[in-house]
Amino acid sequence: MTDYFISPDILLYVLDMMGIVACAVAGTLLAQHKGFDIFGCVLVAMVNAIGGGTMRDIALDRHPLFWMTDHNYVIGITLVSLAMQMFFHLSHKIGTVIKVFDAVGLAAFSVIGFKVALSMGVSPAIAVMMAVWTSIIGGMIRDIICNEIPLVLQREIYITASVAGSCVYLMLDALNVKTGVNDFVMLGTIFTIRILAMRFDWHLPSIRLVK
Amino acid sequence: MTDYFISPDILLYVLDMMGIVACAVAGTLLAQHKGFDIFGCVLVAMVNAIGGGTMRDIALDRHPLFWMTDHNYVIGITLVSLAMQMFFHLSHKIGTVIKVFDAVGLAAFSVIGFKVALSMGVSPAIAVMMAVWTSIIGGMIRDIICNEIPLVLQREIYITASVAGSCVYLMLDALNVKTGVNDFVMLGTIFTIRILAMRFDWHLPSIRLVK
Amino acid sequence: MTDYFISPDILLYVLDMMGIVACAVAGTLLAQHKGFDIFGCVLVAMVNAIGGGTMRDIALDRHPLFWMTDHNYVIGITLVSLAMQMFFHLSHKIGTVIKVFDAVGLAAFSVIGFKVALSMGVSPAIAVMMAVWTSIIGGMIRDIICNEIPLVLQREIYITASVAGSCVYLMLDALNVKTGVNDFVMLGTIFTIRILAMRFDWHLPSIRLVK
Repeated sequence: MTDYFISPDILLYVLDMMGIVACAVAGTLLAQHKGFDIFGCVLVAMVNAIGGGTMRDIALDRHPLFWMTDHNYVIGITLVSLAMQMFFHLSHKIGTVIKVFDAVGLAAFSVIGFKVALSMGVSPAIAVMMAVWTSIIGGMIRDIICNEIPLVLQREIYITASVAGSCVYLMLDALNVKTGVNDFVMLGTIFTIRILAMRFDWHLPSIRLVK
Repeated sequence: MTDYFISPDILLYVLDMMGIVACAVAGTLLAQHKGFDIFGCVLVAMVNAIGGGTMRDIALDRHPLFWMTDHNYVIGITLVSLAMQMFFHLSHKIGTVIKVFDAVGLAAFSVIGFKVALSMGVSPAIAVMMAVWTSIIGGMIRDIICNEIPLVLQREIYITASVAGSCVYLMLDALNVKTGVNDFVMLGTIFTIRILAMRFDWHLPSIRLVK
Repeated sequence: MTDYFISPDILLYVLDMMGIVACAVAGTLLAQHKGFDIFGCVLVAMVNAIGGGTMRDIALDRHPLFWMTDHNYVIGITLVSLAMQMFFHLSHKIGTVIKVFDAVGLAAFSVIGFKVALSMGVSPAIAVMMAVWTSIIGGMIRDIICNEIPLVLQREIYITASVAGSCVYLMLDALNVKTGVNDFVMLGTIFTIRILAMRFDWHLPSIRLVK
């Protein structure tokens, strides 16, 4: 009885996988620069791609972890990481594609984390936190392993976009908008903010009252 | 039938919140120095304040996590972090207050971690470890995120104070002292050791037999 | 009815403990170099020795954690770390022994992680990952705490040895070799690869197609 051409769940899954690919590529590239070996690169790719969702599932006591039942994650990340290592010399050519995929990932991971948290019965405030965790922690652990200051915590409009998207969802929900619509408005909001932030080099201003 | 003016549980909760405030302030200040954005600072404040208790709850399989049911933690940390960012120029004026709050937090987190662990049925040795985890891991992850060597592991009498307090508790318990009393003797021991260590610049000596 | 002189389980436990000792020693030595205090060194020793198994148990929702029921781990690590701090001046004399113990640990931790994962009903692909987790994550967190790039991710044939051992196990299993035999062939494979890698300074080549 659905009147969608593609079901929303499948669309979200495809966007999720685009985010996974972006994270696997970004993790592998950073690991290569640090001189890690083949499996070290695969491990950093894994951490970047599924670290956030793993921490979310552990915090919410949701077992088995999502990548234990759906092998597409682990196998996909491994293949992408190996391919990326083989074709490392082409990495500068795919910069823009990866940045767009990364923004898709930020949006998809946030929506999934937010909805998983709500489905586990937590309050909206905690769901907003879980959206941030899911989309941010992977990149944070990646940078920590590689001994860098986490990029996502700096003036880069990552967490801000995720929080803004969650707030839009909660506002629409309060107005009784249909759930499937909410999801995609949240997704679009996060993606748009992130893309605009990159395009126009937006940074969050400091809120200090005296400079 | 209680003859306390304030119940011990409420007193412990107040002390816990003082520790949370100290951690939120310290996390925000360090994050500001590292140039993190508004939400990056809030995230570091969160990690510093509730990271240890979260890892304790996960290790003990205690769900939902303590801050998922009591929203005072998440909301309080967010507000403290935002206020601290706005009034950053006043931060040098509150140094002493924050150090005292931090010592209160070390003591309160240790007592809470210790008692939560015992209530989950673990042995005293593991409960001592959990007291250390609860009081130390937040600050450790904060320093790791900010790419610093963790302060709490250096010659600063943090873990030492926590372990000493737990040992005092276990000794009193072996002597059949009433539980409520134990708690506050443990709390006082940790607080006193930490304050004295700061005041007189105490450092744990090395135990090397040959220098 | 067993015809073994020593039961396989006891042998694996002894090898496990050798790995724990090696990790406790290595963690303590690194922590000493970083200037951590007595308990800071004990904590890094703990993280190095039981961090991987802890993360495996948490990921697999296996509670209580293995070191909460068997106190030999926590007590053994503490004693080894304290002894190592007292006799720090002898540390250069035991370098070779510790390297061999470390290789034993890599092999034993991998086998234990792999079998624990299979016993929890996960697929072989996830079990290979869990073997790597159990044997690698402790050293990774140790290096992260000490603000170093994780050694195990670099061209050092750690993960490679663990993955190779798991693959050998799965191949033998497909050929219907008896389980106890599998275990020790896996163990021997990992140990041998790691020892040869150290002896002949093997490094995993990069798989870049264009240099």
